[in-house]
Amino acid sequence: MDELQALRHTMAHILALALQTTYGDKVKFGTGPATENGFYYDVHFDSIEFSADNLKTLEAEMAKIVKADLEIKYYELPVDEALAWTKTAKQDYKHELISDLKAEGEKLVGFYQIGDFVDLCKGPHLKKTGEVKSGSFQLNKVGGAYWRADESRDQMTRVGGVAFATKKELEAYNIMMEEAEKRDHRKLGLKLDLFTFSPLVGAGLPMFTPRGTVLRDKLTDYSLSLRAKAGFEKIWTPHITKTDLFKCSGHWDKFGDELFLVKSQETSDEFAMKPMNCPHQIQIYASRPRTYKDLPVRYMETTTDYRDEKKGELGGLSRVRALTQDDSHVWLRESQIKEEVGTLVRIVRELYEELGMNQLRARLSYRDDSDGYLGEKALWDKAQKYIKDLAIEYEIDYFEAEGEAAFYGPKIDFMARDAIGREHQVATIQIDFFMAGRFGLEFTNEKGEKETPVMLHHATLGSIERFLSVYIEHTAGRFPFWLAPEQARVITVNEKANDYAGEVEGILEDLVLDKPLKLNALRYSLDLADDNLSKKIKRAVEMKIPAIIVVGPRDAEAKTVVVRQGSTEESVKLADLAEYLQNIK
Amino acid sequence: MDELQALRHTMAHILALALQTTYGDKVKFGTGPATENGFYYDVHFDSIEFSADNLKTLEAEMAKIVKADLEIKYYELPVDEALAWTKTAKQDYKHELISDLKAEGEKLVGFYQIGDFVDLCKGPHLKKTGEVKSGSFQLNKVGGAYWRADESRDQMTRVGGVAFATKKELEAYNIMMEEAEKRDHRKLGLKLDLFTFSPLVGAGLPMFTPRGTVLRDKLTDYSLSLRAKAGFEKIWTPHITKTDLFKCSGHWDKFGDELFLVKSQETSDEFAMKPMNCPHQIQIYASRPRTYKDLPVRYMETTTDYRDEKKGELGGLSRVRALTQDDSHVWLRESQIKEEVGTLVRIVRELYEELGMNQLRARLSYRDDSDGYLGEKALWDKAQKYIKDLAIEYEIDYFEAEGEAAFYGPKIDFMARDAIGREHQVATIQIDFFMAGRFGLEFTNEKGEKETPVMLHHATLGSIERFLSVYIEHTAGRFPFWLAPEQARVITVNEKANDYAGEVEGILEDLVLDKPLKLNALRYSLDLADDNLSKKIKRAVEMKIPAIIVVGPRDAEAKTVVVRQGSTEESVKLADLAEYLQNIK
Repeated sequence: MDELQALRHTMAHILALALQTTYGDKVKFGTGPATENGFYYDVHFDSIEFSADNLKTLEAEMAKIVKADLEIKYYELPVDEALAWTKTAKQDYKHELISDLKAEGEKLVGFYQIGDFVDLCKGPHLKKTGEVKSGSFQLNKVGGAYWRADESRDQMTRVGGVAFATKKELEAYNIMMEEAEKRDHRKLGLKLDLFTFSPLVGAGLPMFTPRGTVLRDKLTDYSLSLRAKAGFEKIWTPHITKTDLFKCSGHWDKFGDELFLVKSQETSDEFAMKPMNCPHQIQIYASRPRTYKDLPVRYMETTTDYRDEKKGELGGLSRVRALTQDDSHVWLRESQIKEEVGTLVRIVRELYEELGMNQLRARLSYRDDSDGYLGEKALWDKAQKYIKDLAIEYEIDYFEAEGEAAFYGPKIDFMARDAIGREHQVATIQIDFFMAGRFGLEFTNEKGEKETPVMLHHATLGSIERFLSVYIEHTAGRFPFWLAPEQARVITVNEKANDYAGEVEGILEDLVLDKPLKLNALRYSLDLADDNLSKKIKRAVEMKIPAIIVVGPRDAEAKTVVVRQGSTEESVKLADLAEYLQNIK
Repeated sequence: MDELQALRHTMAHILALALQTTYGDKVKFGTGPATENGFYYDVHFDSIEFSADNLKTLEAEMAKIVKADLEIKYYELPVDEALAWTKTAKQDYKHELISDLKAEGEKLVGFYQIGDFVDLCKGPHLKKTGEVKSGSFQLNKVGGAYWRADESRDQMTRVGGVAFATKKELEAYNIMMEEAEKRDHRKLGLKLDLFTFSPLVGAGLPMFTPRGTVLRDKLTDYSLSLRAKAGFEKIWTPHITKTDLFKCSGHWDKFGDELFLVKSQETSDEFAMKPMNCPHQIQIYASRPRTYKDLPVRYMETTTDYRDEKKGELGGLSRVRALTQDDSHVWLRESQIKEEVGTLVRIVRELYEELGMNQLRARLSYRDDSDGYLGEKALWDKAQKYIKDLAIEYEIDYFEAEGEAAFYGPKIDFMARDAIGREHQVATIQIDFFMAGRFGLEFTNEKGEKETPVMLHHATLGSIERFLSVYIEHTAGRFPFWLAPEQARVITVNEKANDYAGEVEGILEDLVLDKPLKLNALRYSLDLADDNLSKKIKRAVEMKIPAIIVVGPRDAEAKTVVVRQGSTEESVKLADLAEYLQNIK
């Protein structure tokens, strides 16, 4: 990686030399770094019209420099000599940079020289330009930028390109980019009629057509069904709240100026649109007393959050202002963290496996030393230790990153690789020792004492819109059978087959699919508590459960059950139970 | 109905006489009308503490008046004599009322007299107080009101009660009220753990617990499934929009000051939360060209609207600020209105039949002569004629009401009777000749010309929250089997039956219910168009449909089909097709 970095950085200098050779002192140099796949140089042209048409000639000039195999020399100058050089060389931008270094107390300044081009630089670089492989780079970008990214300063021209270790890698990159272009979800979204935007509704606010809505629904149904199997219960919360809720959670301090504020004209209530769902879901946990027997309490929701993104950052479904999350929260004891995180890791793996994106890595996102995190450092250390220990325990391919935590806790942020090799952040699992306490959440432990639960935050797909932007490109619109908006189409060879097509339809219209999504399963529970029968029946009757199925040792022998519906009860053979339940009104 | 009205109006006067007898000139009379089930009188007490404790004595006094069988006399006075009377009688409020009559040009003013009590009144009344049946009325209300409902005027005391033709009817009413009290959805919501509110989130913003969320989901799934069978396609739209959208639709002029306004801190966009969904759904219709072959285009959505209701009007789920609609829109030709409305009427009947609320009436809601309606009067006449003709055609039990139309068109507003006899507004079907034109919606007709479609607006359940408030009380929390949050519970007699309970669970966990809700049906279409086969295949391939099922006359003979998946094709026996499709990845 470092070698590639040096190569790309060197390419920036070679580009600069080519510019200097071509345009002489009509070009002034700003800065020229390496980038993810290449390099660029921000330069200022004096009375020269530079456009994409000039790139080929410039690229040829760069090829000459590579072929000439020039030495790349490093030397240092005392800072004042360096400043004197900027005057002679008429490099005003470099002058400013070196003045800053002097102000910071630097005595010596490093330079790299290739041929006639001298540049203030720390490196690293290649030793000779001949190390660059022929045909391994290309220029592909001309754009604008402000000097030092400051809109009030000079406007520069950014000339850039890509560079790889070999020609073959560049070719592979170009093929990938072409493929990405073909798979662009905005184009496929239009072609396959999946979603639309309207200037009357506003940027970043997609509307989903019937086909796109099937994708949304089936993906979220599947994500919900995996979690339902693991004991998660679906809830519903509104999209707005009094700002009091976010003041209590800490979101107001952290994100207050990024929220959509909602003005009531009828009342003096101050509302905001929810940018995330934890504080709302917490209100449901808080709505009744909880004991250790209820834990873990697991809620899940598919709900739309609103974030006031900058307009320039909006694009297709990749970044939207209305983002639908498949969001979950778990309230549990510290002793339950390990098993529960294990469950969530299993769910994440199963979902991405089913979606054909099984190359998962994870970033362990820790806090840094800055302010803006809730709670004590000691608890953070503990939470972060859990994160790392569990990543190892569950054999997650991980790397660590400081400063990427949520303000309430560290995270395991999963990244999935798509069909053309790009990585996208997807699921997340977060450990939070703080939020429950801020809302005064409690449960009663075995001794009758109050304890504060720990919280886990989890999203499986993340934002459905962003996930769709990834998944449409990953599949190029060829969705798996269970997910396809239109799964089957009957086509007749000619009208003589129309009657028969009707017969085929008869089979299709009765078909209910059952994998991987099984919907409309019976909702039932088991009460095996060590209470007497009448108490158990009373509990079920109080909750007005239509079918109470009583089983005792004698039923076990006889392979029967007793079904109570209201005041009537009936003995039913176990073999007939499924049919019996199907027919209850 | 009119007799009962006269009885209740007379009760207000009897109440007034009882008050005058008891409190003499320390009570001044405002107005005293009949109400839905009874009557009240707004009075002003001078240095008297009047409370619910006084009602029994007052009721006894009223009983005496009834028993005395007093005559109820009507007479008229010239307006100035009437004014003179108010001075003598020290009835300041009556003075104001008669002054207003004089200002309006009235010459003669009507009075009713019972014993010593004289009241300005148009009637009608009973002839004698003895016509009131013993034990057929009761006082039950003491509250506050402002003189002429103006907060800046005197505060009055409202004393009220209920009255019926017979004692038996009063008893039936009291039993119903007791039953209603027991069924109060706010109490059942807590007891059955269905929903909750939080002061941090705000009034009128319910959150649904796991059990309540099942109710929401199953009800809306069922409502969606009925419409899906009729060709409706589900779509998704965001909860906010630029106000431009509502300015175009006319909602801004009509409801601008009742909207929740949304402030972007990052951009200058002016947003509002949607109070209804037609303008958003229209954007999807507008997203591609349409021809007469596409019509009717039918969209449906389950989505949450936000309305800035006054706080005093919020209560439980009956009136909320976040209301989730099962909303549909149809774009069609005028010639298709009759059949499509028929379909919607059938859906409404099927749904309420299944929910056990099959006593439906409808209000045909017409415009009145006021402003604030879109478009030309002639088109309104046509739309209203459709509404009435179709109500007759489809044998709807209807009544007509002016001034109840939507601003864009007349409506069939269905009302369902609940288990204790109360009527609630539920589904609606609306004909709209205007909105599509405002948005410039079009379709191409057979001649290649552009036409504007007609729109139907329809909600099946209406607001899910409000419907739940009705349905929880209708069922007293005993939901039908398919809808019950927990449908079945297995209870063991003792721990010896635990293993067997596991065996029973094995049956329950495999059970998928299929009525009335059938979820996860195959999504397919038939292409019987008179095009050649390769064109039909190309169309299906372009839409990336996983399974293309080709049938020709020879397949019909052989009872086979050819299934194309990507570039492979396979002949499959018709008898094996369902299983074959189940196993596609």
